[in-house]
Amino acid sequence: MELTEAREKLISLQEKMSAYSHALGLLSYDGETTAPRGTAGNRAHATGILTEEVYRLSTGKETVELLEFLEENRDGLDEKEKRMVHLLLKDIRFMQKIPMDEYIEYQKLTVESQDVWVRAKETSDFALFEPYLTKVVDMTRRFARYAAPDKDAYDYWLNEYEEGASRESCDAFFARLRERLVPLIRAAGERPQVSDACLHGVFPEKQQEELALFLMKTMGLDMDHVGLSTTEHPFTTSLGSHLDERITTHYHEDDWSSSLFSVIHEGGHALYDTGSDEELLYTVLDGGVSMGIHESQSRFCENILARSKAFIRYLFPKLCEVFPGQMDGYTWEDVYRAVNRVQPSLIRTEADEVTYSLHIMIRYELEKRLMDGSLSVHDLPGEWNRMYREYLGVEVPDDRRGVLQDSHWSFGAIGYFPSYALGSAYGAQFLSHMKKTVDVDAALEKGDFAPMNAWNREHIWRYGSLKTPGEILEIALEGEKFTPDEYLDYLEGKVKDVYGL
Amino acid sequence: MELTEAREKLISLQEKMSAYSHALGLLSYDGETTAPRGTAGNRAHATGILTEEVYRLSTGKETVELLEFLEENRDGLDEKEKRMVHLLLKDIRFMQKIPMDEYIEYQKLTVESQDVWVRAKETSDFALFEPYLTKVVDMTRRFARYAAPDKDAYDYWLNEYEEGASRESCDAFFARLRERLVPLIRAAGERPQVSDACLHGVFPEKQQEELALFLMKTMGLDMDHVGLSTTEHPFTTSLGSHLDERITTHYHEDDWSSSLFSVIHEGGHALYDTGSDEELLYTVLDGGVSMGIHESQSRFCENILARSKAFIRYLFPKLCEVFPGQMDGYTWEDVYRAVNRVQPSLIRTEADEVTYSLHIMIRYELEKRLMDGSLSVHDLPGEWNRMYREYLGVEVPDDRRGVLQDSHWSFGAIGYFPSYALGSAYGAQFLSHMKKTVDVDAALEKGDFAPMNAWNREHIWRYGSLKTPGEILEIALEGEKFTPDEYLDYLEGKVKDVYGL
Repeated sequence: MELTEAREKLISLQEKMSAYSHALGLLSYDGETTAPRGTAGNRAHATGILTEEVYRLSTGKETVELLEFLEENRDGLDEKEKRMVHLLLKDIRFMQKIPMDEYIEYQKLTVESQDVWVRAKETSDFALFEPYLTKVVDMTRRFARYAAPDKDAYDYWLNEYEEGASRESCDAFFARLRERLVPLIRAAGERPQVSDACLHGVFPEKQQEELALFLMKTMGLDMDHVGLSTTEHPFTTSLGSHLDERITTHYHEDDWSSSLFSVIHEGGHALYDTGSDEELLYTVLDGGVSMGIHESQSRFCENILARSKAFIRYLFPKLCEVFPGQMDGYTWEDVYRAVNRVQPSLIRTEADEVTYSLHIMIRYELEKRLMDGSLSVHDLPGEWNRMYREYLGVEVPDDRRGVLQDSHWSFGAIGYFPSYALGSAYGAQFLSHMKKTVDVDAALEKGDFAPMNAWNREHIWRYGSLKTPGEILEIALEGEKFTPDEYLDYLEGKVKDVYGL
Repeated sequence: MELTEAREKLISLQEKMSAYSHALGLLSYDGETTAPRGTAGNRAHATGILTEEVYRLSTGKETVELLEFLEENRDGLDEKEKRMVHLLLKDIRFMQKIPMDEYIEYQKLTVESQDVWVRAKETSDFALFEPYLTKVVDMTRRFARYAAPDKDAYDYWLNEYEEGASRESCDAFFARLRERLVPLIRAAGERPQVSDACLHGVFPEKQQEELALFLMKTMGLDMDHVGLSTTEHPFTTSLGSHLDERITTHYHEDDWSSSLFSVIHEGGHALYDTGSDEELLYTVLDGGVSMGIHESQSRFCENILARSKAFIRYLFPKLCEVFPGQMDGYTWEDVYRAVNRVQPSLIRTEADEVTYSLHIMIRYELEKRLMDGSLSVHDLPGEWNRMYREYLGVEVPDDRRGVLQDSHWSFGAIGYFPSYALGSAYGAQFLSHMKKTVDVDAALEKGDFAPMNAWNREHIWRYGSLKTPGEILEIALEGEKFTPDEYLDYLEGKVKDVYGL
């Protein structure tokens, strides 16, 4: 094979993969947003067949020979090509270790499992979901064993969602969070309580949607390439390339802030994905590199930017306009305090910034035990409820507001949750570096995301998946080591401000 | 090859094709309903690649050998398998005649062309659409030449949309329609005019959507397998199989009847598709056989059933409930007359039953000339406007309400329009036969579609594409020959009733 020809084939292989990924991503997105409720089986049928096509394309002789040839000749490749070959081979070597029928079975299972999860959540019926989740957990463990027989299954998956993460590193990270968060939450609890009455009332979907679209534009999302839909559990997905990005939200008519922060969160993911350099289009380097870095961007937008004093002051007149009369008697300071109220609660996605990481820790501990086999799916709801009592002091009234609240496990994402906490901590540390050149508060007061977006594009987005998460941290932190303490300092500052500590 | 093995391969081939068709159909559906507006290029990228995969699968040695083997051994096949082999070979022989790059180029072109059409329609800018439509027309003509070098291009395409149709048969059909419709329209025009004031006002989308969902249920659609979305130009599509059917509508806030009849029209398509026998699932026999038979079902529901006295009487209380106060001062008879008002107009999909076929005739005449090269796309708007003046006596104020109103040409459907008129005429003739055993009016007065659905299922739906359109006509018409006169009698009856002729 000629190297020139091989390099061209490397590009067309990735274009083909992006087309399949577009189709499979769209099948999933459609299932989560639009499809009639009885169609999961039909979707699983197509998903299974297309997954088999991808498996054959990826692990076929032609592809493997091409990539091995390129790897042997990596001195003749540029930085991008080297990384493409590395990432492609990594995926293919994983696939090669999984028997094809199990690989396809798993893809079909997760389509149906997500569908069953939605119905189980609606009716708070864990028993309906249990056999599916049991299969998902079994297969997740089995796949880790196939892929890395000598590695602990949970270590394997943690590293898949955030390269470099392990039980050891996460244990240390969460221990440090717990050490400083628990007294902080206690201190806030001992102060006069903050009212969140201004968040509640009846806020029609149509007006909330208007607000959502306004926020997307404010964040600087390119509305020609980023769409908004509704779903049970908000998520973001790229279809085929970063030229077609979809964010989703869920409107709660009794609380305008829920959809607002979910739109900004998902919008943060979309900013990251759509910020990839154009030359990465239709390659495996297009879009964000890891869930940790991804969450650093989404949680940065949702919390550090959107729950700030400066942004709430900017936003308040818009709230008054979108919800006429409903903000009467409240000030922007009331909204600022309400959206920063520290209050142990049931739902992760609705949690305040300070208690949020405790929700993650609970999931982390449960996943560890699901993966090492010391906890069965059958016993999961009981353990979930026990840990919510222990960590957050709240009683879980039903599984809908307990173990069934999140969609992640239904599609096999075990090992993903720690990324939320890691990402939050990355984001806080990025902020200090960003502030060296960007007047964040001044920009937020004008509702201008451009200066922060420019910094994030320069240090993070443009690389897509070209750099590893570790390299991104090095670039964005200018060589400084990652530490959770800047995040904890930031949270302390917020609590002191809101509670007058 | 063993016949048993070949028969199994025939099934798995079709399953694979259904998965690709699901993906490609969903890409198109998403583009028409949900996708952000700048994403057509990205969608065309994926569509092009997946189309190439389908082309290779279909025309590849393995597939061709399999089907030719089965054709040689057709005595060992059952009726269904024989028909599958016939239909698959027909498609493949078509594909084989088209150079692969042109085949793919065409699929990508129609993705972009549909997108440009939407924008051209919005701004009434034919010049924007002209280069795309020019390419579509050129390629449509070229493909017909490749496929059937000795046949007239338009004859080729007419027969693709309705097996057996040709310029000769359509000329005769439309001549007969014209002969009886023109005096009928004149007679109605000379009577005191009917008011359609009860259709107009301000009807919020949300309420219209509630009505649409009510109608879908009333029609007997299985809401677990049939979804409703909004789009610029309503259509129906099956995704992968009849287990996932999507209808679309467009709400006009100033006229509740527009979306109502479009929902019932598309609902009729969905009834037909979803009525295929379960054993046809994931084969090429699943879903309706031709556009003519399809339109016979959609236009039957839209007009013969839904514009009947009995149904409007049933519907009226629901209208009063969904649009509180807005029906005050009107009776069900007012609505019946309004939705049956004979009034030459600009928009095909909004036209009354009687003038409707004139809209089709205009498109038929223009398509004939586009296909034989005697009319250029550049001159199309002028000719369109001239014919609207001649046939319907109306002045076209802009291309948005003229040549840009329909989506069909943008996705290459040239030769489709006559199916609407043919289908309308089939439906009227089916009605006489249905009435032998079904008391249609009694059922409609109760809003009960079940008896008509049962008749249609028995005579039409269950066959999917197993029977040819001709065979379906023979079954449903109990051997009687097709004639447009029953349709014309039906229209005359309607006009006499509404206008007291």
